Amino acid sequence: MEGDGARSAITLGPVDVPKAPDVLARELRERILSGELKEGAALPAERELVKQTQMSRATVREALRILEVQNLVRVKAGRAGGAFVQRPTTASMAKSVSTLIRGRQIKLADLMETREALEPFCAELAAIKRTEADLATLDRANGAIAAPDADLSQFLQANVDWHVGVAIASHNELLIGFMTALSQAIYTGTENAAFVDDSVRAATARAHKSVTKAIRDKDAETAGRRMRTHVHTYAAAALKVDQRDSITVDN
Amino acid sequence: MEGDGARSAITLGPVDVPKAPDVLARELRERILSGELKEGAALPAERELVKQTQMSRATVREALRILEVQNLVRVKAGRAGGAFVQRPTTASMAKSVSTLIRGRQIKLADLMETREALEPFCAELAAIKRTEADLATLDRANGAIAAPDADLSQFLQANVDWHVGVAIASHNELLIGFMTALSQAIYTGTENAAFVDDSVRAATARAHKSVTKAIRDKDAETAGRRMRTHVHTYAAAALKVDQRDSITVDN
Repeated sequence: MEGDGARSAITLGPVDVPKAPDVLARELRERILSGELKEGAALPAERELVKQTQMSRATVREALRILEVQNLVRVKAGRAGGAFVQRPTTASMAKSVSTLIRGRQIKLADLMETREALEPFCAELAAIKRTEADLATLDRANGAIAAPDADLSQFLQANVDWHVGVAIASHNELLIGFMTALSQAIYTGTENAAFVDDSVRAATARAHKSVTKAIRDKDAETAGRRMRTHVHTYAAAALKVDQRDSITVDN
Repeated sequence: MEGDGARSAITLGPVDVPKAPDVLARELRERILSGELKEGAALPAERELVKQTQMSRATVREALRILEVQNLVRVKAGRAGGAFVQRPTTASMAKSVSTLIRGRQIKLADLMETREALEPFCAELAAIKRTEADLATLDRANGAIAAPDADLSQFLQANVDWHVGVAIASHNELLIGFMTALSQAIYTGTENAAFVDDSVRAATARAHKSVTKAIRDKDAETAGRRMRTHVHTYAAAALKVDQRDSITVDN
C-alpha cells in the first residue's frame, strides 16, 4: 500500500537512550552546581529517593555512585551515614587538568609556555590583593627553598609551594586551580632533571625573594616583570637540559 | 597483665578500606593514562576480566562504569560491543573546568582576569605557529561577527569561535583546553548583557580583524599587544554594565 511505502522510506540513525541512573545523576548534579543544594547537606536516604523518584533501588544507588566518582557527593558509612553534598573544589579541577596532562602526554615545553602566560599575571594580582597570611606563606617557602641541607625533592616541593602561594595570593580561584595543576605537573616533569644544581637553586631562591619583595611592596608592575623573567629563564634552562650538563639560571 | 596494658595503649584512627571496584578502576586508569592502552583499544570482555582479576562480576562491571563516568572508556552495546579505551580530551577537561566555574559560582570578573592572563600569550604564540587552516578559521569567524543580520547569540558564538580559534592557532593543547572552557563560561556570563550594542559589536569586529592581521603577518609582539588591549577593554565594558546603559568599547 501507498501508506506503507511512505512509512518505509523513513530511516532512523542509532538512537541513544539515556540510562536511568545517568538521568537521575544529572538532575542531582544540576541542583548541586546551581547552589540549590548546599555544601555538606545530606541527600535524602536511599529508600526516600526511591519513593520520590519512583526509580528502582539499584538505579538510585548507581546515580549516587556516579556523583561520588565525580566528587560531587561524599558517601559516609555507618549510623550517621548517607550521601552528603560536596561542591566542586579547585583540587578536583586541578586533578582533572592533571589527568589531561598525563593522559595526552603534554610536553614539558607546553606546560612551561602555559605557566609563562599565567604566572606574571598572578604576580601582578598578588601585589594588589595579598594579605599578611599570603606573605607569611611565601616567606615560609622562601625559607625552605634556601635551606642548605634540602634534597632535590624538598627543593622542588618548596618551589611548588611558592608558585602556588603566589597564585593563592591572587585571590582568583580559577587561576589558583590552573596553577595548582600546572605546578604539580611541572614538578613531576623536572623531578629527574640534571639541571637543578647548586647554582640553579641559588638563582631560584634569589628570584623568588625579589618577586616576593615586590608583592610585599604592592608593586604590581615590578612583581609581574620579575616573575616573567624568572619563569622564562627557568623554562629555558629546563628545556635545554638535553644539550648541556649544567645550566646557568639568572634571576 | 602488663602485656595487655601495653596493647590497649595503642589507638587507631578511622581506617579507609579502598573498595574493590575503585582499586580495579585505578589500575586500569593508570594503564590508560600512561599510554600503555591505546585510544580505541578494546578492553578484555567482562568474563575475561573476572577470570584475570579473580574479582566478582559485579566488581568488574562497576569498575568499568567508573571509567565510563570519568570518560576514560566508551561502552558500546550489541554484538561488536564492549569497553573501548578513550584517552582524555581537551573537551573533557574543559567540561570539568566549566563544572568548577559553575559549581563555585566563580565571578565574571575572575573569568575575565584569567582570560587577560592567557589570551595575549595565545595571540603571540599564534603569530609564530599559525597554519593556513588556522587563518581560514579566524577569517570565517571574522566574517560571521561582522554579519549585519546576526542576532545576539550568533554574535556571541562567532566571538567564542574567534577566541578559541586563536588558542587553537597557538598549537598548545593545554592553552586550547583552558581557553575553550573559559570562552564558553564567558559566553554564558555575558549572554544577557545589555552592553552588547551595535557600537560594541563594531568595535569587537575591528579589534578581531586587527589582531588577525598581526597573526597573519607573524608579528607576535603586535598580536599580543592588540589582544591585551582588546580583552582588557571588553572586560572593563562587561563589568561596568551595571553602572551604565550603553558602553563604548574601543579596539
